[in-house]
Amino acid sequence: MDIREEIKKRVVETEKIIDSFLPKEEGLQKQIMEAMNYSVRAGGKRLRPILMFETYRLFGGKSKVIEPFMAAIEMIHTYSLVHDDLPAMDNDEYRRGKKTTHAVFGEAMGILAGDALLNYAFETASQAFDLEPENIKVGKAMQILAKKAGIYGMVGGQTVDILAENDNEMTEEKLHFIYHLKTGALIESAMLIGAVLAGATKNEQKLMEKAASSVGLAFQIQDDILDVTSTTEVLGKPVGSDEKNNKTTYVTFAGLEKAKNDVSRLTELAVSDMDSLVVKNEFLTELLKYLISREK
Amino acid sequence: MDIREEIKKRVVETEKIIDSFLPKEEGLQKQIMEAMNYSVRAGGKRLRPILMFETYRLFGGKSKVIEPFMAAIEMIHTYSLVHDDLPAMDNDEYRRGKKTTHAVFGEAMGILAGDALLNYAFETASQAFDLEPENIKVGKAMQILAKKAGIYGMVGGQTVDILAENDNEMTEEKLHFIYHLKTGALIESAMLIGAVLAGATKNEQKLMEKAASSVGLAFQIQDDILDVTSTTEVLGKPVGSDEKNNKTTYVTFAGLEKAKNDVSRLTELAVSDMDSLVVKNEFLTELLKYLISREK
Repeated sequence: MDIREEIKKRVVETEKIIDSFLPKEEGLQKQIMEAMNYSVRAGGKRLRPILMFETYRLFGGKSKVIEPFMAAIEMIHTYSLVHDDLPAMDNDEYRRGKKTTHAVFGEAMGILAGDALLNYAFETASQAFDLEPENIKVGKAMQILAKKAGIYGMVGGQTVDILAENDNEMTEEKLHFIYHLKTGALIESAMLIGAVLAGATKNEQKLMEKAASSVGLAFQIQDDILDVTSTTEVLGKPVGSDEKNNKTTYVTFAGLEKAKNDVSRLTELAVSDMDSLVVKNEFLTELLKYLISREK
Repeated sequence: MDIREEIKKRVVETEKIIDSFLPKEEGLQKQIMEAMNYSVRAGGKRLRPILMFETYRLFGGKSKVIEPFMAAIEMIHTYSLVHDDLPAMDNDEYRRGKKTTHAVFGEAMGILAGDALLNYAFETASQAFDLEPENIKVGKAMQILAKKAGIYGMVGGQTVDILAENDNEMTEEKLHFIYHLKTGALIESAMLIGAVLAGATKNEQKLMEKAASSVGLAFQIQDDILDVTSTTEVLGKPVGSDEKNNKTTYVTFAGLEKAKNDVSRLTELAVSDMDSLVVKNEFLTELLKYLISREK
C-alpha cells in the first residue's frame, strides 16, 4: 500500500463529505457563512474525520450516520484554530500560508465565526437524529463529541496552555495535561465516536480510546521534534519557532533522543492495541504508523 | 396572583436547577470553570429557562428530562453575553453592575469562557440521553437547541447587528431581522423545546413557536422604549444609552407611540395564541403580560 497516495484519496473523499454539510452563503447574515466556510476550506490534514471514519469501518460500520459527525469534528477543530489565532490569543495573521479568519473578516467576525462553527458542529451532528431517530448510539456519540471538546477535553487543555504561558511556569505535569487534552481529546473523540456508532463493545471502545490517546500524544511530540529537526522548506512553516517564542515543549524536558524514542514507543503501543482486536483495518494501522513517522 | 412574587419564586427554583449543572471548580483548568460559573451566576431574569419549564408544564410535562435543557439554554444565553462584552465586540467593562467576565479574567479567558459555556451547554443538554435514552424527543430538542442558537438563529442576528453597526447602515428590514434572530430565536427555542419534550402536537408546537416569536419581538421593543422613557434609578442602568451611542432602534423607525402600540399588539397576539389552546398555564400567560408591561 502506498500510504501517501491512499491518504490523499481519503482526504479528497473526506473533504467532499465535510463540504456537503457546510452552510449555503446566503441571507442578510451571509458574511458569517463565508467566514465559516473560508475557515473550514483553508486546508489541513482532515485527520480527525478520517480517523473517525476508519475506526467506524474497522468495527463494520456501514451507514451514513457517521457523516454528520465527521463534519462536526472538523468544524470543532477549525473553530479552535480560528479562536486560537485571535489577537487576544496567539495573534497569528497566517496559518498554512493563508490569512487567518480574523485577518480577513475582522476581529469581531473572527470571534463570531468561531462561535458559529462550534454551534454548527452540534447542529450538524444532530442531523444524525433524522437519519436514525431510534438509534440510541447517536445520543452517546453526541455526549462524547461534547465532552471531549469541552472543559474536560480540548478547552481544558487550551486553558492550561494559556495560563502556563502567562505565568511562564510550565511544568512537565502541565505539558502532559495540555498535550493529552488540547490535542489528544479530539483524536480520542474521533476514534471513540467511530467505535460507538459502529456498535463496538465496551472493551473495544476502551481499547480504541487508549490507542487514540497514545496517537494524540505521539502526534504532538512529533510536532515538537519537527520544529527542531526539519527545514522550513519541508515543513511549509518556519522551523525553530518554539525556541524563538521561548516555548517549552516536550523536547525541552525530555531531550531530542528521548522524545524520538517516546514517539516510537507510543506508536507501537497504539499499533499493538489495534493488533489485539479481532477486527482489522490495514489502512488505519498504516495511517497511525505514518502519522508519527511523518516529516511534516 | 401576585406575579412579581411568583416570578421571584420561580427565579430561585430555576437558579437552583441551573446551579446543579454547573461544573465543579477543580483541576489544572480550574480557572475556566471559575470564569464560566462567575458568568452564569452574575444574575439576570432567567427568562429562557422559566419560559421553557412553564411551556413544558403547560403541555403536561412532568419529568426531569427538561432540566438539562433549562440549564443549557441559560448557558447559551450567558456565553452570548460574555462574547458580546469583549473588547472587539461591545467592549463593556460592566454588566448589571458587575465586572464583565473578560474584565475579571482577562480577554483570552473571556473568549475561552464563552467557548466553554457554549460547548458545556451541549454537554449538559446531552445528559438528557442518560435520563431517557429511548425518548426520541430528546434528539429533536437537541436539534432545536442547536439551530435556534446558530447562524439561522442567535448568531445570525448578532452577525447582522455587528455588520449594520460597522456600515452605519441600519434599515427597518435589518432591525426586524436582528430582533427576530438575536433575541427572538432563543425565546422560541425555550418554548419550542418545552412543548416538544412534553409531547405537544405539531400544531401546538407551531403555535407556541409563533407566540414565542411575538414575545421575543415585544420584549426587545420594550427594551428600546424603556431606554427612552425610564430613569436610571428604576432601570438599574444608564437610560438614553441608545441615543448616546447613536444606536438605531425600533423607536427610531416607528416613534414612541407606535412602538408602545406594537408591544401591546404583539402581547395580545401571544396571549390569544395561548388562549386558543385546550391546555392552560395561568402563570405563563401572566408572565408574558408582565414581561411586556415591565418597567425594567
